[in-house]
Amino acid sequence: MSDNEIIRAIKARRSIRKYSGESISPGAIEDILEAGRWAPSGLDNQPWRFSVITDARSKEQLAPLTAYSRIVKECAACIAVFYHLPDGYDRDKDAMAIGACVQNMLLAAASLGLGAVWLGEILKRKAEARDLLGVDDSCELMAVIAIGHPAESPRSSRKRLSSLILKQ
Amino acid sequence: MSDNEIIRAIKARRSIRKYSGESISPGAIEDILEAGRWAPSGLDNQPWRFSVITDARSKEQLAPLTAYSRIVKECAACIAVFYHLPDGYDRDKDAMAIGACVQNMLLAAASLGLGAVWLGEILKRKAEARDLLGVDDSCELMAVIAIGHPAESPRSSRKRLSSLILKQ
Repeated sequence: MSDNEIIRAIKARRSIRKYSGESISPGAIEDILEAGRWAPSGLDNQPWRFSVITDARSKEQLAPLTAYSRIVKECAACIAVFYHLPDGYDRDKDAMAIGACVQNMLLAAASLGLGAVWLGEILKRKAEARDLLGVDDSCELMAVIAIGHPAESPRSSRKRLSSLILKQ
Repeated sequence: MSDNEIIRAIKARRSIRKYSGESISPGAIEDILEAGRWAPSGLDNQPWRFSVITDARSKEQLAPLTAYSRIVKECAACIAVFYHLPDGYDRDKDAMAIGACVQNMLLAAASLGLGAVWLGEILKRKAEARDLLGVDDSCELMAVIAIGHPAESPRSSRKRLSSLILKQ
């Protein structure tokens, strides 16, 4: 088993839901968005768009739209990830590309010593969240990433690799 | 701008479509699948399954199902990535999770000095490809990753970050 720094980072990344309360620098946010920007996409259509929420008032307004209000309120920043529908060509492929983009951002956050978690439950109220963020309906909310300085070190596990491999 | 090894790897990864013809080790394939296995997923449902194709005969059979036959024939291995439908709970979220899984595998391949490309066009004939790989209809083909030793160093670009950020 190889154990280079990239593979180690991929395997060590965890969802972080508790934060110290310390703010994060605009430079760190930009690094994270840059990582997202470099994801691959079908036909290179890059269907992702980002809205960055760092002010307490906007986080307070967003928080009631999810069961994970505490995370939205306590994190230092949320990145709302949108699907820019006019760029879309295939919903499955575009959703996968957006997933790759989110994963790049989660890995980048971890590499900067930050903790992040991918919030999906808020999509139950995605139109309200979009309106609240002042985004028009050419974009559809696909995910929110909460980011902050980590105040927990959770363990995790996954299904065994052998159970994931389909035999021919 | 921070420039740690993880962010650098994310930004340096390119789609590689030309290969040297050299085979890749089973250990490298396992490292790549391991990276995929550690992706995040909604409800931690891990809806991905993998089928690994390394023998020339299977690659020859798969090749006619895509406009990118040459890539399938010339690469050292294909990883077919399936959506295990009984594990699914939300198609968008599951597709994004599978995209995160694919991205982990692309980054892992690059970290091992290998070249890889995410093939989506083959989904036009996804049921035929699945049948050919001997996979039952509890799984749906979502992507094929072609991997080999790189024989090109393509450049790439992306939309400017400023054009991706939605203003509040």
